[in-house]
Amino acid sequence: MNIYDVSKKANVSIATVSRVLNGNPNVSEKTRTRVLSVMEELGYTPNVFARGLGLGTIQTIGIMCSDSSDPYLAHAIYYLERELRANGYDSILCCTGNSLETKRQYFDLLRSKKVDAIILAGSKFIEMKARDNAYILDASKDIPIMLVNGYLEGDNIYCTLCDDRMATHLATSQLIASGCRNILYLYTSCSYSGNSKLNGYRDALSSHGLPVRDNYIHQCEKDILAARDLLLRLHKSGLIFDAILTSDDTLGVGAVKYAHITGRAIPDELSIVGYNNSSFAVCTDPELTSIDSKVEALCTSTINTLMGVFNGGNVPSRTTIAADLIKRATTKF
Amino acid sequence: MNIYDVSKKANVSIATVSRVLNGNPNVSEKTRTRVLSVMEELGYTPNVFARGLGLGTIQTIGIMCSDSSDPYLAHAIYYLERELRANGYDSILCCTGNSLETKRQYFDLLRSKKVDAIILAGSKFIEMKARDNAYILDASKDIPIMLVNGYLEGDNIYCTLCDDRMATHLATSQLIASGCRNILYLYTSCSYSGNSKLNGYRDALSSHGLPVRDNYIHQCEKDILAARDLLLRLHKSGLIFDAILTSDDTLGVGAVKYAHITGRAIPDELSIVGYNNSSFAVCTDPELTSIDSKVEALCTSTINTLMGVFNGGNVPSRTTIAADLIKRATTKF
Repeated sequence: MNIYDVSKKANVSIATVSRVLNGNPNVSEKTRTRVLSVMEELGYTPNVFARGLGLGTIQTIGIMCSDSSDPYLAHAIYYLERELRANGYDSILCCTGNSLETKRQYFDLLRSKKVDAIILAGSKFIEMKARDNAYILDASKDIPIMLVNGYLEGDNIYCTLCDDRMATHLATSQLIASGCRNILYLYTSCSYSGNSKLNGYRDALSSHGLPVRDNYIHQCEKDILAARDLLLRLHKSGLIFDAILTSDDTLGVGAVKYAHITGRAIPDELSIVGYNNSSFAVCTDPELTSIDSKVEALCTSTINTLMGVFNGGNVPSRTTIAADLIKRATTKF
Repeated sequence: MNIYDVSKKANVSIATVSRVLNGNPNVSEKTRTRVLSVMEELGYTPNVFARGLGLGTIQTIGIMCSDSSDPYLAHAIYYLERELRANGYDSILCCTGNSLETKRQYFDLLRSKKVDAIILAGSKFIEMKARDNAYILDASKDIPIMLVNGYLEGDNIYCTLCDDRMATHLATSQLIASGCRNILYLYTSCSYSGNSKLNGYRDALSSHGLPVRDNYIHQCEKDILAARDLLLRLHKSGLIFDAILTSDDTLGVGAVKYAHITGRAIPDELSIVGYNNSSFAVCTDPELTSIDSKVEALCTSTINTLMGVFNGGNVPSRTTIAADLIKRATTKF
């Protein structure tokens, strides 16, 4: 006798039974009554001690993130857990660091804890070499794997992505339209998301007939002062630039600090665009124009898709969400 | 046959056996050889599938935090997991939100997952009413409970605290020594840590013969723009102040923005002190003087204490770590 029998007999999804058990108000009175009367009829008692013993409850979802101290991922975790809780699910999180070995160990840990799905938060879990992703594909035979802003193709793998390429394409185009011709691009990571952002920048330059120059594209540690110092070095080397597009707000903040030190006027002489629209974007004076990468919508959509999977619905394996360009005071548009 | 038998026979701690199993380099070659030969002798095979089945392995530590999107807690999680991993332990994290009900549910979830200790990260887990903490005291009969910058007295409960009172006392005294007489105090929370900070500010004023005035003490949402707007309102109301001490860097950033809007010169007319020495402290121009609350040291100490508990050592139930005052450009000292 378990939650599946209740779900079948009451003709509702397992998620609905779970919601009733957890006292979630998101269930109609009629459904609640039906579920409760089926439980009584079948003599079903929800047993919290069954949790963790692998007795087929569907209460717990595993979340993996590479670095909880990254503000983007920290918010993703927050929203994922909030949405899971609202749907009557518990979650357990593993912060894995960036080594593939440790990621695999944590993945195995979650599987041994009998989680009912694994969510990979952020695009750092998908490796370049196909064989390094085999453990994920292998797990997807047993449980759904959800990717938040990462991409991997496979049965029972569901990706929710921000359209990062479109976002940087739009920002670059707006910079060009506002008169900028020498646009620096600073980025932190070569993940799927990182490459999409870079491609958006390149494509926008090309489609406006501007050259794509390697010496205008620089990788930088995700650190305010590292970005400031990199820009001071580029400035000193004589490189001419009138705009800085970044893949993260911390780099945008570093760019504002660079401009303050060198006395360049923002936005008249120098435009700056951040990414993620985090709290950092409102720290500086002037405040940063930034791309809102919609982390909350991504997480809500991920959990909606997961609930669809549990309910046996026909859910899309790939969902893409458009970013927003939030205009503040570091650009002329 | 389990890890305890190996530890006993090899005459090393369980943590050391765990380190050998996990390939942690922090074990001498001599010890590693002894442990491996005992394993062979006893026919012990580490069984990862035993994890989660409650078979008495000591591999997994539960961590609870109230809000992973808070930068202080996000860093605490990062350091706790790093230190646990270095000692050969896995960890699973629950982000609980602030409701007592949900905190208790997650606590039960971790216990049902057979974790070997629970770490409560941040001071928001200890309630004012003793009976609301009974579930923690109850659990401490079975497993050690570790508090990171929170305080609760009980057997098998271990607290590692930052000396927040001393830190704000020092900052307030330095502000006074540099000529400030009307020091505003902005804070976000009435937790144990929050109250310690407030007491440090009050005590420093009193010990310098200055009045403690309620209209100079204000609670504020942990939000840059909320702090800025609160200060603009206080300014408009005619309140005279020459320094702002805050319980969080985000409020300090809001104070810098307030000064920019009103044209008050930092630090000549207005001194500002942040708290936590986070990335926010270096976002602004001028950069924020801030109290380094030593989150990394707190987390390292917490894990050292936990390893001591597992090894049966005589460990302190309360460890206090001094904060540092990081002097930057928003103060005259």
